[in-house]
Amino acid sequence: MTLGQEKEKDETMPKNPPEYSGKLIAVEGLDGSGKSTQIYLVKRWLQSKRMKVFFTEWNSSTLVKEATKRAKQAHTLKPTTFSLIHATDFADRYERQILPLLRAGFIVLCDRYYFTAFARDRARGVDQEWVAGVYDYAVKPDMTFYFRVPLETSLHRILSGRPELGYFEAGLDMGWTLNPYESFRIFQGKVFEVYEELTETQDFIVIDAEREIREQQQQVRQLIKSRIDLKSYQLPYMPRLPHDLLFEADYKDESADL
Amino acid sequence: MTLGQEKEKDETMPKNPPEYSGKLIAVEGLDGSGKSTQIYLVKRWLQSKRMKVFFTEWNSSTLVKEATKRAKQAHTLKPTTFSLIHATDFADRYERQILPLLRAGFIVLCDRYYFTAFARDRARGVDQEWVAGVYDYAVKPDMTFYFRVPLETSLHRILSGRPELGYFEAGLDMGWTLNPYESFRIFQGKVFEVYEELTETQDFIVIDAEREIREQQQQVRQLIKSRIDLKSYQLPYMPRLPHDLLFEADYKDESADL
Repeated sequence: MTLGQEKEKDETMPKNPPEYSGKLIAVEGLDGSGKSTQIYLVKRWLQSKRMKVFFTEWNSSTLVKEATKRAKQAHTLKPTTFSLIHATDFADRYERQILPLLRAGFIVLCDRYYFTAFARDRARGVDQEWVAGVYDYAVKPDMTFYFRVPLETSLHRILSGRPELGYFEAGLDMGWTLNPYESFRIFQGKVFEVYEELTETQDFIVIDAEREIREQQQQVRQLIKSRIDLKSYQLPYMPRLPHDLLFEADYKDESADL
Repeated sequence: MTLGQEKEKDETMPKNPPEYSGKLIAVEGLDGSGKSTQIYLVKRWLQSKRMKVFFTEWNSSTLVKEATKRAKQAHTLKPTTFSLIHATDFADRYERQILPLLRAGFIVLCDRYYFTAFARDRARGVDQEWVAGVYDYAVKPDMTFYFRVPLETSLHRILSGRPELGYFEAGLDMGWTLNPYESFRIFQGKVFEVYEELTETQDFIVIDAEREIREQQQQVRQLIKSRIDLKSYQLPYMPRLPHDLLFEADYKDESADL
């Protein structure tokens, strides 16, 4: 589609990534891969060192979340619309939190980034180039950890408790089967395939998510320390409150080697 | 952004426009250009001839409308998010109404189509190529009428009643000025510029919207009749109810020459 020769100066969505002094760290992986636990531990670790850190989760924009609950309840959303609902949620968090905080020099931790949209939307048959285009205003993470587990492991972790699966979460909108658990297996299988493909084209740091939580976390912290000059994200020293001292105690071991 | 070599068969968003036997007619133009009146008259005309016709308005998806009201009330949406909210609304109507009805052989009348997004989003400084990409799954209208009025005429038509302008409607989110009327003038001026540019690259049928309503409507109907074989969209004859007979009476003159 051609929209005319001239192109106006674009202030909100520059083609070249905007300049920012912060760092963007994302975690990706299947449900049940343990990535949320890992990024949570990273967050606490960085906080314990007085780092300027901000954490944000997929699909959590308060504005859009409340707003789309109704639409989702109706169960009539088609894949493109469903994709754009999540894109809207992401844009809201990106424009109001992620980018401003990166510019303010924060380490921004994202539990899922646009790769999640690539994987889930493509699993729903949405054109992958189109999805990539929808998100192409967003900066690439400085580090993306992909927590790889075999599909069966992640399915076991999620399904063994026989949880109540949401209609879209289970992929029931795709009409593959009427059984939510079976549908979830099919959906996650497709998501897994896309993730595995993305490891070949994207700059993923692959973590073996079948190892012990502690081992994975040590590896993640080591990698972050090797690639990011953490000292430059540290807040100036301020007298601690007793609560802070208590909070920091857990993390004494890691604090030493910064 | 490269997302891997292989590309899965894409069922929901084919790159080539889907086959359909219906016709898509869109109207575009500034607020106050009179386009809504014109498309309404087209709708009644076609209905009076027992055409399979469906009418849809910009920003009217019941699912998304309710959903985004809250977000808009918060006044904190940035341009990309605002753009995606409308894209979501459009996608919902497109996937559940416009495309299915085109496939079912309807004449679909759209009061604003994606050109409205191009114009308004670009007026907000959003990258035009990105916006075009977001909408590129949608078919191009068979006919797009652009109702051209001088900016001052449209502003006069809208503002002479001193209406209460919405925050985003007036473009107050852009911070050009705190005066809603002044802001609306600036915003509409930018929208007008984009529309005028689009006339050079898009297949717009330009209608002089300063002429009499009746004259414009005659021209529009003539153009539709010359380009669309209306007979093939006619429902089979069925015995009329008194109400239908009454309804048709107004349109007897036009019925004769089909």
